[in-house]
Amino acid sequence: MNKKLMVALPLMAMGTVAFAQSSVTLFGTVDQAITYVDGSDKWSGLQSGGSADSHIGFRGTEDLGGGLKAQFWLESGILADTGSGDSGGGLDFKRRATVGLMGNFGEVRLGRDETAAYRSMKRFDVFNNAGIGGSQLWSDGFVPDASLGSPTLGNSKRKDNLLAYYSPNYGGFNLGINYGFGESSNDTWETGAYAGVTLGYNNGPWNAALAAEQQNGNSLPIAGSAYNLRQRAYSAGLGYDFGRFQVSGAYRQSDISGPAGGSLDGQTYMIGLAAPVGAAGVVKASYNRYERDVAPNNELKADQFSLGYEHNLSKRTALYGTYSYLKNKSNDGQALGVSMGYVPLDENGKQHGVQVGVRHSF
Amino acid sequence: MNKKLMVALPLMAMGTVAFAQSSVTLFGTVDQAITYVDGSDKWSGLQSGGSADSHIGFRGTEDLGGGLKAQFWLESGILADTGSGDSGGGLDFKRRATVGLMGNFGEVRLGRDETAAYRSMKRFDVFNNAGIGGSQLWSDGFVPDASLGSPTLGNSKRKDNLLAYYSPNYGGFNLGINYGFGESSNDTWETGAYAGVTLGYNNGPWNAALAAEQQNGNSLPIAGSAYNLRQRAYSAGLGYDFGRFQVSGAYRQSDISGPAGGSLDGQTYMIGLAAPVGAAGVVKASYNRYERDVAPNNELKADQFSLGYEHNLSKRTALYGTYSYLKNKSNDGQALGVSMGYVPLDENGKQHGVQVGVRHSF
Amino acid sequence: MNKKLMVALPLMAMGTVAFAQSSVTLFGTVDQAITYVDGSDKWSGLQSGGSADSHIGFRGTEDLGGGLKAQFWLESGILADTGSGDSGGGLDFKRRATVGLMGNFGEVRLGRDETAAYRSMKRFDVFNNAGIGGSQLWSDGFVPDASLGSPTLGNSKRKDNLLAYYSPNYGGFNLGINYGFGESSNDTWETGAYAGVTLGYNNGPWNAALAAEQQNGNSLPIAGSAYNLRQRAYSAGLGYDFGRFQVSGAYRQSDISGPAGGSLDGQTYMIGLAAPVGAAGVVKASYNRYERDVAPNNELKADQFSLGYEHNLSKRTALYGTYSYLKNKSNDGQALGVSMGYVPLDENGKQHGVQVGVRHSF
Repeated sequence: MNKKLMVALPLMAMGTVAFAQSSVTLFGTVDQAITYVDGSDKWSGLQSGGSADSHIGFRGTEDLGGGLKAQFWLESGILADTGSGDSGGGLDFKRRATVGLMGNFGEVRLGRDETAAYRSMKRFDVFNNAGIGGSQLWSDGFVPDASLGSPTLGNSKRKDNLLAYYSPNYGGFNLGINYGFGESSNDTWETGAYAGVTLGYNNGPWNAALAAEQQNGNSLPIAGSAYNLRQRAYSAGLGYDFGRFQVSGAYRQSDISGPAGGSLDGQTYMIGLAAPVGAAGVVKASYNRYERDVAPNNELKADQFSLGYEHNLSKRTALYGTYSYLKNKSNDGQALGVSMGYVPLDENGKQHGVQVGVRHSF
Repeated sequence: MNKKLMVALPLMAMGTVAFAQSSVTLFGTVDQAITYVDGSDKWSGLQSGGSADSHIGFRGTEDLGGGLKAQFWLESGILADTGSGDSGGGLDFKRRATVGLMGNFGEVRLGRDETAAYRSMKRFDVFNNAGIGGSQLWSDGFVPDASLGSPTLGNSKRKDNLLAYYSPNYGGFNLGINYGFGESSNDTWETGAYAGVTLGYNNGPWNAALAAEQQNGNSLPIAGSAYNLRQRAYSAGLGYDFGRFQVSGAYRQSDISGPAGGSLDGQTYMIGLAAPVGAAGVVKASYNRYERDVAPNNELKADQFSLGYEHNLSKRTALYGTYSYLKNKSNDGQALGVSMGYVPLDENGKQHGVQVGVRHSF
Repeated sequence: MNKKLMVALPLMAMGTVAFAQSSVTLFGTVDQAITYVDGSDKWSGLQSGGSADSHIGFRGTEDLGGGLKAQFWLESGILADTGSGDSGGGLDFKRRATVGLMGNFGEVRLGRDETAAYRSMKRFDVFNNAGIGGSQLWSDGFVPDASLGSPTLGNSKRKDNLLAYYSPNYGGFNLGINYGFGESSNDTWETGAYAGVTLGYNNGPWNAALAAEQQNGNSLPIAGSAYNLRQRAYSAGLGYDFGRFQVSGAYRQSDISGPAGGSLDGQTYMIGLAAPVGAAGVVKASYNRYERDVAPNNELKADQFSLGYEHNLSKRTALYGTYSYLKNKSNDGQALGVSMGYVPLDENGKQHGVQVGVRHSF
């Protein structure tokens, strides 16, 4: 019994005409992990996304002839442990909502999307940026001084209102460029826009990428005067496949220029290893070093070690287990602490975490 | 590789039985437009729906035999520039959530739906009721006096709790009837119901429709005493296809009876032209005249000229550009101003807008 | 024209790989009912779910070989009369969001799901737990004393963070076990967890089930001191198919241990009958007796009689009509009243309800 597609009637008599597409892919992942984490408190429970973010999406590609293709992509995050959307509320397409054209020239995309920078770097984390072992390479869009009203530049993995260009591969090299408009009616480049560029290289066992980004923040009334925050971030990643194992690492530096000329900087160093074991297993290990500096003299250093095993029941279904250890070292009582999630962690606290879960993609 | 449909197990052992349908259509549109609008402020950014509202939906039809069919339709609006639902929050099926039966007698539909009146009139706007060039024929469900607490009768394009009947074509003529229950537990006809009727004519190059509607509002406490608002609206549209171009126009009059016998009336006149250019292009132009009168003596007149070009890359994918100009003329300082959106516009302001975008339907 | 599935590109270069599934089922129900209910007030309107909850879902099964299968299931409730999600807001997957493995050992499921207890008992209500005739067997998760701040243990039909095991059938017998973690970061077994177990028997005309559950509530500040609520519930159901008609009944007892040693108990007795009439009709009747006791001396008894007819236009589409009568008898002025919904009902009030609707499953 095949899934038949109705021939759609024209939706509008004049102006535009819409047809049902003969090729739509429904895809997604449901990932659930039984989780134990200690820290300033202890917690055990079920969590979505121990080895990959749970999501569901719809996408399709149309061949326009002459090498040109149109593509749409609508993707919604899910907190599968509670059935909510990934913001904790309803479903939306905040993982991706784009339309684009692809051809010999590369690809042009418009809409809500992950940034070119995150897209180019996420592959270097052997823990897939998810769960207790996932790197927090991107957790830097913050101004962590409560006296400033905790301004934030948002989750910089994805941006609204993005224009993106992705080049084809030229001898292994490829280029990605992003421009993100601000959302507010009076946003300018200074007050709300984003720009990013990446250069990638993929050739045989080599996999490398460089990225630079700037996010301009909204005017914030701090201590009575408006202030424009600005985040500049630079990322670099490198991976090599030795055959019997893969090694990859990344570095990211984020500088947020805050009030009164203060700088709120962060560096993250990540290195990871993934090695096949037997026909269906993969062992993973990673080390992350987080450094967060708030001028003039607040400083946090945190170390995270993660070890995991993933057993593939098929290409689409896996069982996995992850152990992670995280230790904060701060010179100040400010809430600079990094945490592997689920429970808060003091600025000098340490944390153990264990996740055992199942992931199914469709 | 065909998309196979699983044979579903009965969901319930007794009572009702549910089966998975062999024919479900997944359809939608993603439309993104780079937009510049001035007005009382200037704004540029990415906007969803420059030439058609972005949306995704699921629908299916079952042949019940004897000429009878059942149909369901669930359709969700999307703000594709941010990935949100079209209310700015999560996804829902507020574009349409209906079940119906179709046969020789016509069609009966129940649920959230666009009104028969809007359904019959929307085809006359060559700009498809979307983007900066779209007609605001339907933007009249308002009582624009802030001293009254800005009561509103809601977006009258779509209604909850609708019962709808649509007749078959009789020699080109067709009939649509709507009744919409109020939602609140003590809504009556007087306090929350809606009724509408349309008569359409489609024959060869001719396309015509008449519609009449009444929406009764909820009791509003105004100046200490409750008041039931009532909106009556009449619409008429006419289109003719000359072959080398199409001309269409519409008129809509909305009268809201407000407090103390005051009348809050609006008229909109729209005329448009769409002409194919070459094998894949369409040139569009329209003029809208908006008139809003608040008794006793506040009056707004606004003129909007729009010009657009749409280039079809296929039946489902198009590039487009739109220019629009809007000028308000008010005799009073009240906030009666019409705007093409994105930025507010003063009651005597003028506005230019440009959109360049891509639309893909699936 | 067959719905083709795109061969998906690997989403991640290292770590995990996701593929699009060749077999995803899109399923659901749209059910709309024209409804009249009186009570302390009168109400008529359109309501979603007169004979089954409206919903839409996505599910798929992957054969892993060796008798092992993986399954995902994402299901969203819909209020189809307004197009909202079933909480009145946006769509989410709060009907079900699970991933599981199935084999000779039975089934293991993780995520948001209906409880094993509800899953085993829902089949005994001939009115399918929906609409004005549906049994309120499960409407007991409440502490109905407003002076206590109306604490609630939530809708116990479905739980977040569930671990579930369902056994295979052994000579007609089957077992279901649930453990539900609390959601808050400091939830323990005492403050937020749930556990349930069911034993079922299905053999020839016989259909029986027993269930026991315990839900521990969050600490509630009542009259200045924190209090942990605890609900224990026991359910039993029995059905027999006589061929010309089916008889089924259920009993549920819920005891909530409230503040100061008070007990807040409820019992519900349900019996129903469903008889085929002709080739496509089913006549249904049920009687529900609700008893709610709040120590020391507040007591409510309510009786509900329901009568319905369902006419199947196909296996997936039905027309139906339901009449229900409900009478509360309380010895106290407290708001203990049971209602068939849509309008409140006094603690000594009576209520008539009529629904006529259409249900379509896909």
